[in-house]
Amino acid sequence: MNFLNTTDLDDLTLDRVLLAAEQLRSEPQQDWLAGKSVALIFLNPSMRTRTSMEVGVFQLGGHAVVLQPGKDAWGIEFEPSTVMHGEAEEHIAEVAAVLSRYVDVIGVRAFPKFVDWSVDRQDKVIKAFAQYSTVPVISLETITHPLQELALALTLRSQLGDPRGKQFLLTWTYHPKPLNTAVANSAITIASRLGMDVTLLCPNEDFLLDSRYLDIATTQCSQHGRSFEISHDIATAYSGKDFVYAKSWGALPWYGNWAKQQPQHHEYKHFIVDEEKMSKTNNARFSHCLPLRRNIKATDAVMDAPYCVAAEEAENRLHAQKAVLGMVTGALS
Amino acid sequence: MNFLNTTDLDDLTLDRVLLAAEQLRSEPQQDWLAGKSVALIFLNPSMRTRTSMEVGVFQLGGHAVVLQPGKDAWGIEFEPSTVMHGEAEEHIAEVAAVLSRYVDVIGVRAFPKFVDWSVDRQDKVIKAFAQYSTVPVISLETITHPLQELALALTLRSQLGDPRGKQFLLTWTYHPKPLNTAVANSAITIASRLGMDVTLLCPNEDFLLDSRYLDIATTQCSQHGRSFEISHDIATAYSGKDFVYAKSWGALPWYGNWAKQQPQHHEYKHFIVDEEKMSKTNNARFSHCLPLRRNIKATDAVMDAPYCVAAEEAENRLHAQKAVLGMVTGALS
Amino acid sequence: MNFLNTTDLDDLTLDRVLLAAEQLRSEPQQDWLAGKSVALIFLNPSMRTRTSMEVGVFQLGGHAVVLQPGKDAWGIEFEPSTVMHGEAEEHIAEVAAVLSRYVDVIGVRAFPKFVDWSVDRQDKVIKAFAQYSTVPVISLETITHPLQELALALTLRSQLGDPRGKQFLLTWTYHPKPLNTAVANSAITIASRLGMDVTLLCPNEDFLLDSRYLDIATTQCSQHGRSFEISHDIATAYSGKDFVYAKSWGALPWYGNWAKQQPQHHEYKHFIVDEEKMSKTNNARFSHCLPLRRNIKATDAVMDAPYCVAAEEAENRLHAQKAVLGMVTGALS
Repeated sequence: MNFLNTTDLDDLTLDRVLLAAEQLRSEPQQDWLAGKSVALIFLNPSMRTRTSMEVGVFQLGGHAVVLQPGKDAWGIEFEPSTVMHGEAEEHIAEVAAVLSRYVDVIGVRAFPKFVDWSVDRQDKVIKAFAQYSTVPVISLETITHPLQELALALTLRSQLGDPRGKQFLLTWTYHPKPLNTAVANSAITIASRLGMDVTLLCPNEDFLLDSRYLDIATTQCSQHGRSFEISHDIATAYSGKDFVYAKSWGALPWYGNWAKQQPQHHEYKHFIVDEEKMSKTNNARFSHCLPLRRNIKATDAVMDAPYCVAAEEAENRLHAQKAVLGMVTGALS
Repeated sequence: MNFLNTTDLDDLTLDRVLLAAEQLRSEPQQDWLAGKSVALIFLNPSMRTRTSMEVGVFQLGGHAVVLQPGKDAWGIEFEPSTVMHGEAEEHIAEVAAVLSRYVDVIGVRAFPKFVDWSVDRQDKVIKAFAQYSTVPVISLETITHPLQELALALTLRSQLGDPRGKQFLLTWTYHPKPLNTAVANSAITIASRLGMDVTLLCPNEDFLLDSRYLDIATTQCSQHGRSFEISHDIATAYSGKDFVYAKSWGALPWYGNWAKQQPQHHEYKHFIVDEEKMSKTNNARFSHCLPLRRNIKATDAVMDAPYCVAAEEAENRLHAQKAVLGMVTGALS
Repeated sequence: MNFLNTTDLDDLTLDRVLLAAEQLRSEPQQDWLAGKSVALIFLNPSMRTRTSMEVGVFQLGGHAVVLQPGKDAWGIEFEPSTVMHGEAEEHIAEVAAVLSRYVDVIGVRAFPKFVDWSVDRQDKVIKAFAQYSTVPVISLETITHPLQELALALTLRSQLGDPRGKQFLLTWTYHPKPLNTAVANSAITIASRLGMDVTLLCPNEDFLLDSRYLDIATTQCSQHGRSFEISHDIATAYSGKDFVYAKSWGALPWYGNWAKQQPQHHEYKHFIVDEEKMSKTNNARFSHCLPLRRNIKATDAVMDAPYCVAAEEAENRLHAQKAVLGMVTGALS
C-alpha cells in the first residue's frame, strides 16, 4: 500500500498508525525493515525529512539511499507518451520499475513547480511514482505533507489530550517568497479530521487555499459537529484558540506571477505570530512545520516560549514516519 | 584483485561470478562484507549504479560511502609529476592511498571527457585508482561498463538459456547528445564472449566503435566459431535476431567536435527501435542499459512490450555487483 | 560533552582518547554507537573527514547522516535576534534543537568566511551549534582542526616514540589561494602540548598566526621546559628537526583582501618542501593534513619518500574520531 495522503486512510488505520508512533517514542529500535532498503528521492531540499527518514530507517534495521535526480542522478520525465528530446534522460516508467527491483519502499519529495496551479494541483509526480512502482510509495511532501499531518496529530494529542472540540487556528504569515500551500492544506485536513473547531486566518480571499482542501475541512468538521471558519481579522481569529499553527504560502490567484504578488505580500508583514497575538488565545500552544524564518513568521519571543512545540512536532516526524514505514511494508499488524 | 574489465577474468572466473549472481537472486542476504566499507566515487551522475551498489553493499553487511569529487569532495589530479596549480586540490596518489586506509573496496565512475578520444581511450582515471590503491578497485563505468556486461550476460542466460549460437544485435540509436561508447563497447565484448553471433548495426562507418573493441568481438566470435558482422542496413540487421540491444553513442571521428556531428546525427532518428523493426526478429527480447529516452531511442510500445527486459537487466546489476564484491574481497571462494 | 578544541580536554582525558584510538587500530569493531545516529554537517567540501566519519560511525554500530545546508538542506542563520529576510530559511536554534531530537552526536565543518578575521576568529558557527544542541557537538574543522590534532599526535607517538623534547617544525608553504589557518593553529597547539620544541617557519611577520594560538604554543612549550620559536630563515629552521609539518595559509593582515596578498604570496614559492630542505633535518618524518597540491606545497620526491607519513596521519583520523565519538557519548569509560 502507498501513503500519499492521510485522506486515503480510514479512521481505524489512522489511529493505529498514531498509536504505533506513540509506542515508538519509548521503543525506538524495531526490526521491521531488517535487510530492507528504502529509496528517498528528493527533487527539493530537505533537512528534517531526510534526517528523520534516514535515522528512522536505520532504527528499523534497514538502509536508506538518498537520490537527487537532476543533481546526482539523471533527470526524470513524468509525462506519458512524450518524445523525450528535453533535459530528462529517463522516464518515470523505468525509474520506478528499476527502483522497485532494488528497494522495498520509495519515498518522494516533489514540490509544485509554481507556474500553473491547475497543473500542480494534479500532483502528477507522486502519482506517477505510485502508478509505475511495484513497491509502496510514501509522499515526503508534494502539494500536501501527510507525514507532517501525522506529526502534528501526535503533537495535538500529546499537548491537548483529546483534540476533539478544541480550537485550532491556522494563520497565514508573511515570507519573502511565495511558498507551497502543502502544509497549510495538510494542517486544516488533519485538524478537522481530529474533530477540532478549525479557523483559517489569512489577509483576504486571495490567500484562500484550494477548494479541494477547504471542502475536506468543511466536511470533516461538519461530520464531527464542529465548525470550519475563514477569518481575515487577526484579533478575533486568535481569540480563545487552544492551538496556533502558522504557515506562509503564495496566493493562488497570482500563482506563477510573483512579481505582481510581491507588493501585496509585503503589506501583510503584521501577520507575524507575536506575544501580543498569542496573549489573546486560551493559553494556546504554538507550532510550525519548520523551516521557519525568525522575526518574519514568528518572533524570537514566541519561538523561545515554553508554549512553542515546534521541536516536539519535528521529533514526532521521526516516530510517525517509522510507523508509516511499518504500515506500508506490512510489519505493523 | 581489481574488476576493471571482464576481459581480465578467465572463463572459469567469469562463470563463477555469474553463477554466484544467480544464487544471490534467491539468497540476497550474505555476510561477505560484514563490518567492511566501500567507497563509491562518482565523477558523473548515477541512479541505478549508486542505488544498486549501496543496497548491495548493505545486503552483504557492509556500508557504502558515496563521494563526488569536485562537488562535495576535493577535485583530483590524475596526471603524474604535475605542478598542481590548476583546480584540483589533491593528487590521486594521496586520494587512493588514504581511501585504501579507510575502506575495503573502491568503486569509480569516470566517464570520458569527450575532447580527445586518443586520450580518453587510455582510461587513465580508473587505471590511476588501480595503480595507487592498495584495496580492490571496481569500475562503475569508464570507457567500458563491465558491471553492465555481467548484468547483460545474466539477462541473456535467463532469457535465452544457453546463449551460444544465438543471434545478438547491437543497434546504434539517435540521441540528442553524443554519448559514451562504453556500453556499446561492452555489449559486443560480452555477447561475443558468450559465443553468440554478433551484429553491430550503425548508420555508417563513422559510427564504428574503437578497433580495440571490434577486434575483441571479432576474435571472441571466431574462437567460438561464430561471426561478428557490421551492418548499416536496418532490415537485414534485425532479421532473425534473438536479442536486440540498443545504445546511442557519438561518432568517434567527430569526437570533441559535436557542432559538426550534430546535423549528421539528426539524419538517423529512424534508427529508433520500434515494433516494426522488432517484428523482423526471431521473437527477440529487447534490452537497454538505461537511462533511455522514450520515443527517441525506443518507442513506448517497445518499452512496454513483454519482450522488453530492460528492468530485469537493471535488477541483474544488483546481483552481479554483489558477486563482484564477493570476488574482489575474497569472500566468494 | 562537546569536542570543539583539544584545549578543552585535560591531560588525562587527552591521553585516554589517544590510547583508545591506538587500541582501535587493532580492534576496529565496537558497539559504542549501536542503534545511534550521527549528523555530519558540511558547510564546506570534505573527502577524508566525511569518509572516515561515515566509516568510523559504521564500525561502531551507528549510522551517519550527511547534510550540506544550502545545497541539499536549507541555509542556516547563525546570528541571534535577526530579522531573517536574507537567504537562510531557518535559524540555528531550530536546526540544533531538531537535530538533537533525531541524532546522538552532531559533527560540524564550518570554514571561516575569509572576509573579516576579527569575525571569523570568534568561531560563531560551531559555538552556536554547541549552544543550541542538547547532544554532543564535534568540530570537523572550523578555525582549528582538533580531530587533525589527535591524528597528528598519534602519528608523532607512533613515529617518534615519546615526542617530549623532539624538534617539531611547522612550515608555511605557498598555495595559489589563501587558505584557512586552522591546521596551522592546531599543529602548534598539539605539538607544544606534547612537550616538543616547536618552530614556526613563515616568510615574514605578515604570515604569523593569530596571537591566541601563538600564546597557547608559547605557554605550553614553557610548561614543558621547551621552546617555541618563530623563524623566517628556511635553512636554520629545518636544521636538526625530527618532524616537519607543512601547511599553507593566507596572511591575516590581508584577510579578505586577496588581490593585494596574491603578489606577495607568489614570491614565496620556494617554501615548497623538497629533498634539499629535508636533508637538513635529523632524518625527520614529513607530514601534511591533506589535501595537498603536489609540486606546489611539497615535491613528488618528498611525498613519495619513506619518511612521508601523511597517509598514516590520515588513517589516524579514523581511529581518533572513533575514540572521540566514544568519549562524547560516554561509551569510552
